[in-house]
Amino acid sequence: MQYERLPLSSGYMIQEKFAHFTDHELHMHDALEVSIALDQGMKYKIGEACYYAGPGDIFLLRPFEPHWNLTQEEGQPSRWIMLLFSPSFVSFIPRGSSLLTPFYMTNTSPLIPADSVHAQAVQRLAIEALEEAKQALPGWELQQQTLMIQMLVHMQRYYMMHNRDQLQEDSSAHGIIQAIEYLMAHWAEDIDMDIVIEQSLIKKTWFYTKFREVTGLTPNEFIVRLRLQYAGHMLQSTAKSITDIALTCGFGSASYFNKVFKEFHHLTPRDYRKR
Amino acid sequence: MQYERLPLSSGYMIQEKFAHFTDHELHMHDALEVSIALDQGMKYKIGEACYYAGPGDIFLLRPFEPHWNLTQEEGQPSRWIMLLFSPSFVSFIPRGSSLLTPFYMTNTSPLIPADSVHAQAVQRLAIEALEEAKQALPGWELQQQTLMIQMLVHMQRYYMMHNRDQLQEDSSAHGIIQAIEYLMAHWAEDIDMDIVIEQSLIKKTWFYTKFREVTGLTPNEFIVRLRLQYAGHMLQSTAKSITDIALTCGFGSASYFNKVFKEFHHLTPRDYRKR
Repeated sequence: MQYERLPLSSGYMIQEKFAHFTDHELHMHDALEVSIALDQGMKYKIGEACYYAGPGDIFLLRPFEPHWNLTQEEGQPSRWIMLLFSPSFVSFIPRGSSLLTPFYMTNTSPLIPADSVHAQAVQRLAIEALEEAKQALPGWELQQQTLMIQMLVHMQRYYMMHNRDQLQEDSSAHGIIQAIEYLMAHWAEDIDMDIVIEQSLIKKTWFYTKFREVTGLTPNEFIVRLRLQYAGHMLQSTAKSITDIALTCGFGSASYFNKVFKEFHHLTPRDYRKR
Repeated sequence: MQYERLPLSSGYMIQEKFAHFTDHELHMHDALEVSIALDQGMKYKIGEACYYAGPGDIFLLRPFEPHWNLTQEEGQPSRWIMLLFSPSFVSFIPRGSSLLTPFYMTNTSPLIPADSVHAQAVQRLAIEALEEAKQALPGWELQQQTLMIQMLVHMQRYYMMHNRDQLQEDSSAHGIIQAIEYLMAHWAEDIDMDIVIEQSLIKKTWFYTKFREVTGLTPNEFIVRLRLQYAGHMLQSTAKSITDIALTCGFGSASYFNKVFKEFHHLTPRDYRKR
């Protein structure tokens, strides 16, 4: 498996792409990714799972989740639209990080099926965003950004609607989502998990089980991954020193940041920046 | 003529409205307004001028510009969509204030005609924004805000396209637009007009003539009006002291702020806030 550094200095990217291979080594990255299948014959490998997708099916590829986009028939490339963005893309929106919760609830399906109104809205908006870049009229970048936000709202709506029954039956799932939103808003600070747990109204022992069920991670792993995402984006998009980034992202020291970063990326932050 | 204080604490407002009167006293306000005629039979009085509008025609009602929306036939109310917003609505967008230049170039027509693609886009987006409020799904306010930004981009595109020939012939008009954008971004600071004029590449004596031609105002009047717009919005939407607002908005002192504010509003800032 490859770890990929994606150039997201503007915070997001949208492109039309072709899937060429019927099989391929998986890759992963810290960016959030949305993939919209445009043709028949798309195939997604996500972790252990494999999905056959029809036109309009949408997949959320979660940060650090191994995946690859494939075509079903050799010599028959399939078209898809790729949206990539850093979590910092929504940082200027009040409570914007709550838009990203679907990307962190790994116990939900990554698929938004083509027959959902929200999948249809996302596809329409993505095509409009590509068209904006082609025409490049005044303000096209701002238009793309607003279209990206609208797509995120639609994806969040899908997950909220889709999991509504489950959320109503299972009040602790609601508490975990609140905890995720809290961590996504406060990742840069010292986080007192006891306060987070208290606010979730879930019993402490049950909270940890439940948190892992929803996110696949312990709260601590979750926070470290978030910090790595922001740090990775800062390494690419700013000239800040490694120490600065370590402290801004809540790692406490450059040496601890270096250690954790290397564990994930098999590269020091300095080398990651140079690539 | 009446001066109206409009409740824009969230920075903007969008509503479907009916015009009932065939004649009415004009009013004015410091908010920026966009009016979209939905029915046959709308009539706009703007300053000295009167416009008969068809469905889809869009009017920009500039800040402090006396106006009223009328119906052509008594007893036959006409529908229109009202967008109101404070200039601070775009303050979180990088270079966002440049989106508002069409509202400050009073030498251009206030009408974006229904047959323009931009008018059609604005109407479609406005109807979508109203629909968002009706359905009130999660994230609807954020959706409305992004739709508002998209409408502003389309209106700016219309004015840039429409005045392109004029701008190409008349290089000084381009310099004045740059100066307007500069003032809109720096209204809160001490502004050195000599620097603004130098950057515009227009000769000093000609600059003042040209500035009045485009905006209807001297640069100083222009700055004071901008500051009054922001101050009015702060009086409504914050609990800041009058002195704080006076200083934040670049008036230098509470007493000077009080004096200028009273000249415009025939009310002290304190009374304006209480209303």
